Amino acid sequence: MDGGNDTREQAYAADIASIRQAQLRIEPYIHRTPVLSSENLNKLSKKKLFFKSECFQKGGAFKMRGACNAIFSLDDDRAARGVLTHSSGNHAGALALAAKLRGIPAYIIIPNNAPQCKVENPTMQSRELVAGRVQEETGAVLVHPYNDRHIISGQGTVALELLDQVPEIDTIIVPISGGGLISGVALAAKAINPSIRILAAEPSGADDVAQSKAAGEIITLAEVNTIADGLRSTLGSLTWPVVRDLVDDVITVEDEEIVEAMRLCYEILKVAVEPSGAIGLAAVLSDKFQASPAWESSHNIGIVLSGGNLDLSVLWESLR
Amino acid sequence: MDGGNDTREQAYAADIASIRQAQLRIEPYIHRTPVLSSENLNKLSKKKLFFKSECFQKGGAFKMRGACNAIFSLDDDRAARGVLTHSSGNHAGALALAAKLRGIPAYIIIPNNAPQCKVENPTMQSRELVAGRVQEETGAVLVHPYNDRHIISGQGTVALELLDQVPEIDTIIVPISGGGLISGVALAAKAINPSIRILAAEPSGADDVAQSKAAGEIITLAEVNTIADGLRSTLGSLTWPVVRDLVDDVITVEDEEIVEAMRLCYEILKVAVEPSGAIGLAAVLSDKFQASPAWESSHNIGIVLSGGNLDLSVLWESLR
Repeated sequence: MDGGNDTREQAYAADIASIRQAQLRIEPYIHRTPVLSSENLNKLSKKKLFFKSECFQKGGAFKMRGACNAIFSLDDDRAARGVLTHSSGNHAGALALAAKLRGIPAYIIIPNNAPQCKVENPTMQSRELVAGRVQEETGAVLVHPYNDRHIISGQGTVALELLDQVPEIDTIIVPISGGGLISGVALAAKAINPSIRILAAEPSGADDVAQSKAAGEIITLAEVNTIADGLRSTLGSLTWPVVRDLVDDVITVEDEEIVEAMRLCYEILKVAVEPSGAIGLAAVLSDKFQASPAWESSHNIGIVLSGGNLDLSVLWESLR
Repeated sequence: MDGGNDTREQAYAADIASIRQAQLRIEPYIHRTPVLSSENLNKLSKKKLFFKSECFQKGGAFKMRGACNAIFSLDDDRAARGVLTHSSGNHAGALALAAKLRGIPAYIIIPNNAPQCKVENPTMQSRELVAGRVQEETGAVLVHPYNDRHIISGQGTVALELLDQVPEIDTIIVPISGGGLISGVALAAKAINPSIRILAAEPSGADDVAQSKAAGEIITLAEVNTIADGLRSTLGSLTWPVVRDLVDDVITVEDEEIVEAMRLCYEILKVAVEPSGAIGLAAVLSDKFQASPAWESSHNIGIVLSGGNLDLSVLWESLR
């Protein structure tokens, strides 16, 4: 069943074997997150939806899986020098948390002026410069947020768990940004059951993946504009081949659809998601998805609620 | 182990046998809700906390358990005439939902002018009058929100599940209002393991249970003032004996502590709770609890996150 010897898979950065190894490696450090369902959302979507709730993961997002796999894969000597990232947001938080669990330093390079949860693209260059200097000085291992085989393998454990929890799933909808999560999920799910279909959900204002799939090569956007601050990255050399070959389609949704999906997550599922986390629900409810004959045969749909890190101070101010 | 023949228990409106019957009866209609945990909240409380997340229950609160048990206990003739409540909020929603599942009418009497999720005490009398008239005309069965043995038995299934999911629990903290939930939980938990301690959590601005326990009789407050709109009821004739005998203590918390606990639920647990739902976490974090020698020996604490029905429009307005 595993298909681990499929030669095609060997061409990718990860495979079912590396994902199963990751599962064993990270199991002591992560939560097996619950799968939630709602009759109301089933009715609304005309499908059976199964929400893999990675909001409840340690650190509040699936990123802890990849970070733990990367950090606990290091031998003691390399680990002792620490890990480094110039990413921000959920990957940085997860890397810091996983490093703490291993008892090693973590260097997180973020610009001084970054507002919480938001780091815009223009600062990328200077961050990379600073990161390079820190790396030279410390010998820390750079852990890329997605273009890394251990990260991809770690994120793929989401699919192993989900298909163990709900074996009847025929389709999985995954938010896409740099492609680490969806690559791991696609590699794991298609190895377990090649007929499972993988759908990427992407904001219209950062639709580089839809454009890349259409063009047959990685497209980088000059600027992105979306409320989903976790979905602004570009595909990498390791994730692109998987996305190109194994992701069946990409659905783009508007920011208003994302906010409406967030509202449904909070008010019906009672799960505190961030905009990026709710995009899978937005996709399944979108006119594009509902009207597409291609997805008519999808009945049991897994949706990855990828994370829940959101600044809610407006809510607390209103209650006080 | 069940202790179902303990003569003391026979004096109460429910017992472990009726709670186990309820579990079998309602199992097809409810969710087995997940138990969440967080290292951060463990550190903050200096305990191991296990959050029984009834926010994810159908209808968004534990109330669906009791409502289903009450409605599916009715014989076909009585059921056909429908059910009725003059309660509002989560019980009303759950009763309507459970009635729909059985295919019978539900009459929910709420004042026209009630703001969403909030019905103040002064309207109680007129609601009871209207309810009486509807009952006469329809022959519908009045289902009290808590002073009802089927309701108490249904709510007790929370404890059966929780102790099955986390057998090492030594203490359970439960929000208290009319006492239906805590009565069921206490009867189930103490029958399974008499050494388990039950702690009620109550808002300072509606502390009738603390006063009742102190006085040795039911005390009714002239007015209540708390953000926790689900915790404004008074003990009933069936819940009071259980609360008197089996609830080990009551902790009262301020509204500010409730809002802070809500914030932790959203931002750390990623669970959308209503104020009443967060009060158990507020209790375990309170100075009163932390400083009390009585609770030093509590290590593994179950906390019932009772519900998640809250108007969040301020949040959506800010995001749009």
